[in-house]
Amino acid sequence: MTTVLDRIHQLGFSLPTPPNPVATYIPTIFCGNVLLTSGQIPMVDGELKYKGSVPSVQPIEAAIRAAEICGLNALAVASAALDGNLERISRVVQLRVYVASDLGFTDQSLVANGVSDMMVAIFGEAGRHVRVALGSIGLPLGATVEVEAAFEVHDS
Amino acid sequence: MTTVLDRIHQLGFSLPTPPNPVATYIPTIFCGNVLLTSGQIPMVDGELKYKGSVPSVQPIEAAIRAAEICGLNALAVASAALDGNLERISRVVQLRVYVASDLGFTDQSLVANGVSDMMVAIFGEAGRHVRVALGSIGLPLGATVEVEAAFEVHDS
Amino acid sequence: MTTVLDRIHQLGFSLPTPPNPVATYIPTIFCGNVLLTSGQIPMVDGELKYKGSVPSVQPIEAAIRAAEICGLNALAVASAALDGNLERISRVVQLRVYVASDLGFTDQSLVANGVSDMMVAIFGEAGRHVRVALGSIGLPLGATVEVEAAFEVHDS
Repeated sequence: MTTVLDRIHQLGFSLPTPPNPVATYIPTIFCGNVLLTSGQIPMVDGELKYKGSVPSVQPIEAAIRAAEICGLNALAVASAALDGNLERISRVVQLRVYVASDLGFTDQSLVANGVSDMMVAIFGEAGRHVRVALGSIGLPLGATVEVEAAFEVHDS
Repeated sequence: MTTVLDRIHQLGFSLPTPPNPVATYIPTIFCGNVLLTSGQIPMVDGELKYKGSVPSVQPIEAAIRAAEICGLNALAVASAALDGNLERISRVVQLRVYVASDLGFTDQSLVANGVSDMMVAIFGEAGRHVRVALGSIGLPLGATVEVEAAFEVHDS
Repeated sequence: MTTVLDRIHQLGFSLPTPPNPVATYIPTIFCGNVLLTSGQIPMVDGELKYKGSVPSVQPIEAAIRAAEICGLNALAVASAALDGNLERISRVVQLRVYVASDLGFTDQSLVANGVSDMMVAIFGEAGRHVRVALGSIGLPLGATVEVEAAFEVHDS
């Protein structure tokens, strides 16, 4: 059987180490059978890989990569909450995608497709979610993209 | 009996054709008995009717109309998910209203009242919801307003 | 026994009078056993105490205070929905913190820590929540910070 982790690797992605909590908030919480994540930024190995707004500092293509990394971090913190068993995710319910935007930038949807398409590539039909994408004047630490996710989870 | 659709028409509104999904995300999802919508922008017949920020490009009055259209699109996608039976909506739970704003614009609440007031006009007390309104530096496709909605739904 | 209200007072805070609804939306709604609040701004006794963006108008320290007040208002409206019995809050589930930001401001997390740290100080481990913090080009009435909260509630 192909696992979720297999599909992540087949797509050329890898699950990052979940970032350590840096404040009093926590990376995930269960609300009934829904696992909510805190806002994820494109951290890789403790370093923020994509900083600055689109398109003056980061071109759209880079922002799409940033959105993918945010999504991988959401999966990484979900995995930690699920004892490493991503098979327990029965559905991606919702993604909110915030894009650090220059005045006049209106392609937030293209950026958000980075993480939306990745979730569908990984989870198939169960990866199809509702989504909100919008521009932000500035994101934590200067991140290019921030993503929050809600996953539906079944018992192991 | 006056249906929800009757009330929509009596108020001078009409339910648009739900916009076709343009990406891998979907317009609505059930999360238990709550129907969540993706972010809705003021599309009418496949055309974005209100573009640009408030108030430099769109005056507040236009933005209020834009918010109404976003709300009607939320009802349209909900209707599609409910086989056309909007009577199954037992409550409007939550609206998030994002307003494309110029620097210094602080009347996001007035704009959001467009969709809040409309929901109460349509659903009466069951239309009273919690709400978040905020300014955005830029919304998808240059939309003036974006609205996401959560409806509580009972069995048909 | 130390009540939630005791801890609020011990920390030097006090619960404000919940702001009256100024539009057709409502301050809180139950969604199952989760109590959702509308976006709260730093109103004290009917007056908006912190206006303007960070850091040009409000330094970070002031914005942290503003975030605390938003959190206290969220608790005030929750208290009103719970007949004054804040002991019914079993967990702080989620906070979304919107910070009115100048171009180039990227310390939204520091501002959001104001309300996150306060919730943990009040509720202990049960106060640890998932969080999203982001910059906004402009918030209702010119507020410096806006916070929406979700509390898990048990029967009295």
